[in-house]
Amino acid sequence: MFQINENYQKLPGSYLFSTIAKKVSAYQAANPDKSLIRLGIGDVTQPIAPAIIEAMHKAVDEMGHAETFRGYAPDLGYDFLRKAIVENDYQAKGCGISEDEVFVSDGAKSDSANIQEIFGEKNRIAVCDPVYPVYVDSNVMAGRTGTYDAKTETWSDVIYMPCTAENNFVPEFPKETPDLIYLCLPNNPTGTTLTKDQLQEWVDYANKAGAVIIYDAAYEAYISETDVPHSIYECEGAKTCAIELRSFSKNAGFTGVRLGFTVVPKELTCGDVSLNAMWARRHGTKFNGAPYIVQRAGEAVYSEAGKAQLKEQVAYYMKNAKTIKEGLKESGYTVFGGVNAPYIWLKTPNHMSSWDFFDYLLENANVVGTPGSGFGPSGEGYFRLTAFGNYENTVKALERIRAL
Amino acid sequence: MFQINENYQKLPGSYLFSTIAKKVSAYQAANPDKSLIRLGIGDVTQPIAPAIIEAMHKAVDEMGHAETFRGYAPDLGYDFLRKAIVENDYQAKGCGISEDEVFVSDGAKSDSANIQEIFGEKNRIAVCDPVYPVYVDSNVMAGRTGTYDAKTETWSDVIYMPCTAENNFVPEFPKETPDLIYLCLPNNPTGTTLTKDQLQEWVDYANKAGAVIIYDAAYEAYISETDVPHSIYECEGAKTCAIELRSFSKNAGFTGVRLGFTVVPKELTCGDVSLNAMWARRHGTKFNGAPYIVQRAGEAVYSEAGKAQLKEQVAYYMKNAKTIKEGLKESGYTVFGGVNAPYIWLKTPNHMSSWDFFDYLLENANVVGTPGSGFGPSGEGYFRLTAFGNYENTVKALERIRAL
Repeated sequence: MFQINENYQKLPGSYLFSTIAKKVSAYQAANPDKSLIRLGIGDVTQPIAPAIIEAMHKAVDEMGHAETFRGYAPDLGYDFLRKAIVENDYQAKGCGISEDEVFVSDGAKSDSANIQEIFGEKNRIAVCDPVYPVYVDSNVMAGRTGTYDAKTETWSDVIYMPCTAENNFVPEFPKETPDLIYLCLPNNPTGTTLTKDQLQEWVDYANKAGAVIIYDAAYEAYISETDVPHSIYECEGAKTCAIELRSFSKNAGFTGVRLGFTVVPKELTCGDVSLNAMWARRHGTKFNGAPYIVQRAGEAVYSEAGKAQLKEQVAYYMKNAKTIKEGLKESGYTVFGGVNAPYIWLKTPNHMSSWDFFDYLLENANVVGTPGSGFGPSGEGYFRLTAFGNYENTVKALERIRAL
Repeated sequence: MFQINENYQKLPGSYLFSTIAKKVSAYQAANPDKSLIRLGIGDVTQPIAPAIIEAMHKAVDEMGHAETFRGYAPDLGYDFLRKAIVENDYQAKGCGISEDEVFVSDGAKSDSANIQEIFGEKNRIAVCDPVYPVYVDSNVMAGRTGTYDAKTETWSDVIYMPCTAENNFVPEFPKETPDLIYLCLPNNPTGTTLTKDQLQEWVDYANKAGAVIIYDAAYEAYISETDVPHSIYECEGAKTCAIELRSFSKNAGFTGVRLGFTVVPKELTCGDVSLNAMWARRHGTKFNGAPYIVQRAGEAVYSEAGKAQLKEQVAYYMKNAKTIKEGLKESGYTVFGGVNAPYIWLKTPNHMSSWDFFDYLLENANVVGTPGSGFGPSGEGYFRLTAFGNYENTVKALERIRAL
């Protein structure tokens, strides 16, 4: 008789955003006349930029003619895209990353969930708390997290690094030595980040401890301050200890287009085993490339027209961020983030729990946000709003919140 | 110090098609004047059908306007696509599969590699031999296959079911009881298949043994004989023992478009645990949906115009299959497949090894095929040619082979 992967049974409840979606659907069904404003899930609302639309139309046409038709893509991504990535995201910033260190994928969510596969089962993971749920959940599924304590909402074998207002959202080096350290910077959900000097300390720590940093830089396009690094490879020594995950979802609005990439430097090894080679093998065996049309869309992100259009798009969302942050401040809320990231992280008023505030906001302002506790125990008492709505709705949402 | 997943170190050499690609590149570099004909990897060559191109253009336009822009897709796929799948692939064939049993993905390769994740580590897998390499390789990575014997090219914990000319390519029930049984029908690489009665025996066997059949039906569109089932759910009792993988790569030319789906019936359980719920959880945690544009392309596959155009496309490739099969027969080869599948499986002449014949064909006819032994030990002495080339090249390849 076959057996299931018992680790799945350990997962408490369902994926955070599925739970929110269900709650929102139920509320909307019961109140069909209410107009909800969704500032919960980090999903973009602005249309794909014209330069990218043009590139996709062209690629679609190519697929319709035998002379230009493309079948299976190269496992690791088309050269034209890997070249554009290396030139723009790395060489232009002084990071010596080469094309064969770049692995094109269908998005950073898949990569952030799959990357743990190439590591041993006994590795200890460390995560910031609060944190994007996929890092821990994918490790739960792999049996790496021990047992779950429903009371504290923590796993026995996960090292949690609290990031709260008390430590200014800068994680401290943990007491126990981790093997894998997940860092998402600029951070989801808190919208905060580290300076280059602060990140350098983590790189030095990882190299000394023999740990690998899984660096999720999905929000780097939103960085506005000059002392904040866009890539971990801006730090010295990062190539021997860090894997970087990148997404096109937030810098180019690709949440429904699906494209991302992962950088695994060739200098990153375990003894004489190359992690670059391992990830190449995983990619070649379990993935068959991102669609040609989508890779051409990715290439257009780096065109002159694409860059100019996306700069405007990012500015549009950051105007929302400012609107939310300032609106909340004026209403007396304590708020964080929103300067180098499209997320605003607020303290719930009157010590309400995160889920209570979720219900309160949904029912009284018809605004959907994300409960901080959904991202980990240290998120309790906090709440996330995203700047990815459209401007008119964002302004309206803030009016409703102020009127509470 | 972090550890790697040691199972990766057990994998012998690289992925079959990567090896072939490297050999071919090397030959082409050394012989730049030679014109190679590629009948190796199962990659399509015909352009995407007009009805699908039109649907993609429309979807691209939608992504370019705020009113019609789509962000994150529903985890399990858009309703419009799941509805089209259920109506056309299942209800029309009398299989009672419902929309919430269908999980849209970026392709059957990913699904066939990932599906093992929801099963226990100790499960014994059974595979046909020869077989599509991903089934075994993904289980090697998960530590489910024991040790590798380089001499016999087999894994100690894998149950092999030889499919050769001797048993007419019909796998026999294994002596040891497996937990997971991978069946690819119509078969890759042999191009052979089972009748509905023969498949029913496997369904009955699995239900009795408490095993799950992973049924890869990627080639079902090529079935021409009426007693061959298009879906395993045509067999009685399959819903309590089978997961079906489907691909748009071969029936609609989507190898570079990327779309597939997996059916996990709600009746498939382990005790009180639903495998449908487990796969939903995996999908929701580790995947973020297929692109909107691609899902609209998938929908167009089921439109009246799409169906008519794809019927022609399949007929085009099957004409190639006939050309190859008859050409080889006339040249004295012993050949199989090519009637319900786009693959022709031939016995190498003069007891040559599969790789020797690969080199022989590459060097003397400039035709690229796939060595049978790359699909498993029982594939030794066989060779695969695909019908996915264009017609002119296919005819030319056969002329070259005849001239040898």
